[in-house]
Amino acid sequence: MKTEAKGLLLVVSAPSGAGKTTICKKFLKKNDTVKYAISTTTRLPRQGEQDGVDYHFTSKETFLKMVENGAFLEYAKVYNEFYGTSRKTVTELIEHGYDVLADVDTQGASSIRKLIPESIHIFILPPSLKVLEQRLRDRGKDRDEVIKLRLSEAKTEIRQSYLYDYVIINDKVDSAVDVLQSILIANRSDTNRNQGVIRTLLGENNE
Amino acid sequence: MKTEAKGLLLVVSAPSGAGKTTICKKFLKKNDTVKYAISTTTRLPRQGEQDGVDYHFTSKETFLKMVENGAFLEYAKVYNEFYGTSRKTVTELIEHGYDVLADVDTQGASSIRKLIPESIHIFILPPSLKVLEQRLRDRGKDRDEVIKLRLSEAKTEIRQSYLYDYVIINDKVDSAVDVLQSILIANRSDTNRNQGVIRTLLGENNE
Repeated sequence: MKTEAKGLLLVVSAPSGAGKTTICKKFLKKNDTVKYAISTTTRLPRQGEQDGVDYHFTSKETFLKMVENGAFLEYAKVYNEFYGTSRKTVTELIEHGYDVLADVDTQGASSIRKLIPESIHIFILPPSLKVLEQRLRDRGKDRDEVIKLRLSEAKTEIRQSYLYDYVIINDKVDSAVDVLQSILIANRSDTNRNQGVIRTLLGENNE
Repeated sequence: MKTEAKGLLLVVSAPSGAGKTTICKKFLKKNDTVKYAISTTTRLPRQGEQDGVDYHFTSKETFLKMVENGAFLEYAKVYNEFYGTSRKTVTELIEHGYDVLADVDTQGASSIRKLIPESIHIFILPPSLKVLEQRLRDRGKDRDEVIKLRLSEAKTEIRQSYLYDYVIINDKVDSAVDVLQSILIANRSDTNRNQGVIRTLLGENNE
């Protein structure tokens, strides 16, 4: 939302297969004033991916220089490629009153919490591990061993969910999107965020 | 919401004329699983008021005995009559998983906070003092001096709003009801409230 007040930073994590990407996409579609924090990555663009839309693509050399310069709120190395969330982009959007959605892993969320303590952290849970396993199988991408590994990783990540402010159980995608929407609206009404409004109300604009 | 988890206690306050009663009524109509914390009062029923629906009507003697026995989460004396929120009713509903809405003044809210720290406190604000004054005048109930007094009381109350978790600006009633709804939904997703769900997910119901 473009307002006088600072925007909110929503940090979303989930185990693989919990439906995070679908939820985030639907949520962003409903809220064209919420900006997606586009990751910077060193991996090559895949078919159909656009620079500046899906990712900011960059070289490893540039990425590592950015790391050195503290350019990232968080970054991670996955399969020998780097992924990071630009500190400047996020903080500028927030300062200008836009809400921002960042989609990061549990370690990334923890790094962001240290740098932006007032960020709002949301963990998306599958309704059960059984459903999660089924979803991973339905993708048809992974072999049995990989699925077992993903499930074990999922458990480790879910154990970190207590560090988040909210958990959303993704039983039905649309309901999960609605909950995310409610979290945004509720946090916009947080008293601490509205001190300016209250001060204005109490005296300055009352002639 | 009737669930395994404990219900939420929503505590709502507002200055006279901010639209609290209308918002609460609309909100309760939309959420038949949220129970209204019916006040106990010593004043006589007015035309159309039903015992056990609008208020629990009682004698001063009984009321004061209840006060002595710690029966109230909060109580207040207004124009020589007493009003109180039953501790037993509220805690029993919450224990049974119902959400409860209590409509109390700023002092009542502060008493409830001490007894039920996890209660969620919401302050409803008028869009401006000018609008508040107009609304009080439109009621046509009060003379000029009374309206001046109400406005001065409103300012005192609004100064207490920083003690609340959320503030809702009642510009349009339906939007204000939606925000209240979002606050309820978001708080149901609070991580602390969902520790049981997460534990179950992680192991116990996964065969």
